[in-house]
Amino acid sequence: MQTLLLDLDGVLYQDDHVIDGAVETLRWCKRRNIPHLFVTNTSSRPRRALVERLSSMGLSVSDQQIFAPPVAARDYLVANDATPLALFVRKATREDFEGLELLDDAAEQGAGSVVIGDIGEAWDFAALNRAFRLLMAEPRPLLIALGMSRYAQGSDGLVLDVAPFIKALEHASGCEAVVMGKPATEFFDAAVRKLGASPAQTVMIGDDIVGDVGGAQATGLTGILVRTGKFRPRDLEGDIRPDAVLDSVADLPQWWENRDS
Amino acid sequence: MQTLLLDLDGVLYQDDHVIDGAVETLRWCKRRNIPHLFVTNTSSRPRRALVERLSSMGLSVSDQQIFAPPVAARDYLVANDATPLALFVRKATREDFEGLELLDDAAEQGAGSVVIGDIGEAWDFAALNRAFRLLMAEPRPLLIALGMSRYAQGSDGLVLDVAPFIKALEHASGCEAVVMGKPATEFFDAAVRKLGASPAQTVMIGDDIVGDVGGAQATGLTGILVRTGKFRPRDLEGDIRPDAVLDSVADLPQWWENRDS
Repeated sequence: MQTLLLDLDGVLYQDDHVIDGAVETLRWCKRRNIPHLFVTNTSSRPRRALVERLSSMGLSVSDQQIFAPPVAARDYLVANDATPLALFVRKATREDFEGLELLDDAAEQGAGSVVIGDIGEAWDFAALNRAFRLLMAEPRPLLIALGMSRYAQGSDGLVLDVAPFIKALEHASGCEAVVMGKPATEFFDAAVRKLGASPAQTVMIGDDIVGDVGGAQATGLTGILVRTGKFRPRDLEGDIRPDAVLDSVADLPQWWENRDS
Repeated sequence: MQTLLLDLDGVLYQDDHVIDGAVETLRWCKRRNIPHLFVTNTSSRPRRALVERLSSMGLSVSDQQIFAPPVAARDYLVANDATPLALFVRKATREDFEGLELLDDAAEQGAGSVVIGDIGEAWDFAALNRAFRLLMAEPRPLLIALGMSRYAQGSDGLVLDVAPFIKALEHASGCEAVVMGKPATEFFDAAVRKLGASPAQTVMIGDDIVGDVGGAQATGLTGILVRTGKFRPRDLEGDIRPDAVLDSVADLPQWWENRDS
């Protein structure tokens, strides 16, 4: 048996359009009964909104098939009693944390955890400095990274994602973040377990050489890079060697069937 | 012969007031003919403004006694032909780079170097993302850090300095910054050479356990930490062990004379 993990943004869609062949690849996946999950670092939308967005693009996916940082973080925060939360997430994503105690928006101390998601243009000095001051207060809160993606392909160019802000906060405060998302091995392991598979049986396909391919390979999965989304030719010049490089997710069925033969 | 390097912010002054005993310590320094330099990571003001500020607080210092990142960076950029410059420095600090070719303020490619100083509240997502895009353009520019201080003590609490933003950009772009300032060994070495001394003959006194004490010790200097400025008791719990910890720079003469005896 072989199982599959698929990244979303840059692999199945980009901005508001489906990538050519993505719908057909998902159909092939269902037809062949390949167990699969969508493993995304998206923290800019709640899971419910991701499902709706995929649906509007003709990609039919259920809540339970989406494995994303806010959902993993919620479980972790409850298990570690790490409230009240200082949430640095977009307003919409707050629903994934509903029911947990939140810190006052202006407070600079007293957090049980500082949770950092992709808030994009909402980052400014005041927000980053507030997160820093919260981390410097005693007792020290947990620093939680909702994914460690470095950047994404935006409509007008590359845009910074969560990881650079985590690196800034880690360096300034001396804290080490707990990473809920790619490329953390724990996150890939949890996704593989959810499929009832083993890493060696599982293929990950994504457009991020570090987050998708590097993280998957470090966990023992096969890592495939696509030349869509944030892909840059320079990605192939580093230390991480993808097990395959495909022009897009449209080429996955052919690669898969050839590999089997 | 023994020589001395002194940090400015948090050691001689804080916000707009002189730290008690600082004037007397500088007088002692002159009376004893101890060769000394002021080694600062300040990039928020040009050297000329630093001299004026010190003078207004009763601290008489000449231009040539101040060793700061913009001055060191200028020499390096000229030697490495790394123009046009994308300058992320405060308006006032631009005068330290006068005469060098600057990149257009809106350009997202074409930089010979991306120079990052302390711009404080001027950091927002757009500015950081622009620096990132410049670094991702081909051919890749140099990334220049005007010091690698993690944070400073501001009037209402701790404030992020240059280093966290450099860490963010390094991680996002895969570039490695050339550090012009503390704690870079090259920077301490250059300061010691300017005094015609050797590292083993030189004492560094500062309020930053990493930037001042760690950097100095790594270069072979004696590193003294003061309990003023950004000092926190937690600073003494890490891997860096200061050669001495003083309540403030006021205690330096006594420590120095006792050491000699």
